[in-house]
Amino acid sequence: MNPFTDIPADSVSALGEEKLIAAIRRWLGAASPRAPFGIGDDCAVLAPSRGRQLITVDPVIYGEHFDDTVSPRAAGGKLFKRNLSDIAAMGGRPRAAVVALALDRRVKLTWLEQFYRGLAAISRRHHVPLVGGDIAHHRGGIVATLTLVGEAAAARVVTRTGACVGDSIWVSGALGNSLRSGHHWRFAPRLAEGQWLARRRHVHAMIDLSDGLAKDLRVLAPRGAEAALDSGAIPRRAGATLAAALGEGEDYELVFALADRADRKKFAQAWRKKFPRTRLSCIGRFVRAGARPSSAVNLADYRGFEHLR
Amino acid sequence: MNPFTDIPADSVSALGEEKLIAAIRRWLGAASPRAPFGIGDDCAVLAPSRGRQLITVDPVIYGEHFDDTVSPRAAGGKLFKRNLSDIAAMGGRPRAAVVALALDRRVKLTWLEQFYRGLAAISRRHHVPLVGGDIAHHRGGIVATLTLVGEAAAARVVTRTGACVGDSIWVSGALGNSLRSGHHWRFAPRLAEGQWLARRRHVHAMIDLSDGLAKDLRVLAPRGAEAALDSGAIPRRAGATLAAALGEGEDYELVFALADRADRKKFAQAWRKKFPRTRLSCIGRFVRAGARPSSAVNLADYRGFEHLR
Repeated sequence: MNPFTDIPADSVSALGEEKLIAAIRRWLGAASPRAPFGIGDDCAVLAPSRGRQLITVDPVIYGEHFDDTVSPRAAGGKLFKRNLSDIAAMGGRPRAAVVALALDRRVKLTWLEQFYRGLAAISRRHHVPLVGGDIAHHRGGIVATLTLVGEAAAARVVTRTGACVGDSIWVSGALGNSLRSGHHWRFAPRLAEGQWLARRRHVHAMIDLSDGLAKDLRVLAPRGAEAALDSGAIPRRAGATLAAALGEGEDYELVFALADRADRKKFAQAWRKKFPRTRLSCIGRFVRAGARPSSAVNLADYRGFEHLR
Repeated sequence: MNPFTDIPADSVSALGEEKLIAAIRRWLGAASPRAPFGIGDDCAVLAPSRGRQLITVDPVIYGEHFDDTVSPRAAGGKLFKRNLSDIAAMGGRPRAAVVALALDRRVKLTWLEQFYRGLAAISRRHHVPLVGGDIAHHRGGIVATLTLVGEAAAARVVTRTGACVGDSIWVSGALGNSLRSGHHWRFAPRLAEGQWLARRRHVHAMIDLSDGLAKDLRVLAPRGAEAALDSGAIPRRAGATLAAALGEGEDYELVFALADRADRKKFAQAWRKKFPRTRLSCIGRFVRAGARPSSAVNLADYRGFEHLR
């Protein structure tokens, strides 16, 4: 859906601020608790956190993360899920979200309603209330920014650092062809999987794939090491070439390093028992820089998504 | 400063993402802790909160909240302080911030550096680390969104509800003429004042003034009541008419309701002792709807700032 209209009566400017906020609360329904625990005061109030807190922020921008081919409901859902995926990558549990919307006054009310209903659906599915936000005018564009706070679900959070030479490299789901297949807004954030992985001490490091395996895996590599990947083991989405699986991005899958001493067979069995519907692939291992076998993929031949280029 | 350049070498697109993030961390300096407690992982990690948590989000948008007459350093500072003012209005203590930047690739690197240095200066002044963020492309605009998490500084948080008929109405600082005077980016968020007020049980309700007293005070009024203001008591910034003081907005001052049974003279003395440099004015009281004396300001004659109109 194209978000804009030239008919003032159909646009967000028609309602006026007070009625617009009332409409947003109606669209959000049970996803929006009452103030001070939700929308309606200077800040939202949350109960104290039990464990360490997590915080992450990601936007969706019209023309960058969604366009007229993506429904507003899907765009709202994508915004929420991108951030849930970041919490998943630390093995955390999401707690509450706030959304800041910068939008042109010509945005259609129907577009906005479906956008918020998309947010509300994800809020309900994952039991993460939308506790606050802001809406402001921005000539010519739509920038929606969601900040998610969460907390550690296990005794530890899994960070991007901690992988060792010899660790095996694993990935959930399948990669590539995210844009054309609609995976970029259809995906399910790997929250349960991330929490399960955080409870296993053999999981050394983890990241979620947003800019493509070739780029994101460099972040996970230990100092003085590189990834040696088996090209045949890299799980590809239908229609994805190897280059697409390595470089396109927006996969929102988890990649993690597992200790060399872990029993890989038992580990994979335990995963299959817990997550029978989520594919898991061992795609290679970290080796000393320069020690990559000639049969392994040379990641330097592939590029991930580069922002601001 | 105009933020845009047509010379690619001077723009944010020149550096590439990795170098740009390294530059941002350099510009932020001590304001940016190391990952996982700061920039560099999927989420930032914070220690558990002691009390109830607060969360607020507000943007600054090019063409709306700042323009070429405002330096990028001031725009960054304003972004941080707008959010600090919301924490102040609940009597809270800020803990950490994340910033999401949506910007055109033609934005000047010098603009961006000064913007982040403006954020860093406020971060240092108020001891609130910038723990994470995001930077994404957005054709033709600049939308910077800051989310602030904080916690209750006293046994309670002060909300917008709780004022009673008979309560006196107080305001910090002076109002009006915020845009022309530069107050809209020069202001100091009233954090210490807000925390002090939260510890006094006679303070029934509080809000920070962003859309103008005429509009924001309606939010504070108890059900079935209205504000009766003494026009002569409303503190005006130099050059501000009464209409400007009531309706222009961007004052970032605290307005609060004080119990009728409180000793107003003692209260004002205690304030002056604690905050000798922050003006405090008693500007009226809440009366039953319709019981406003004819000498009092009729707020219905004034409008605050309306978003999205």
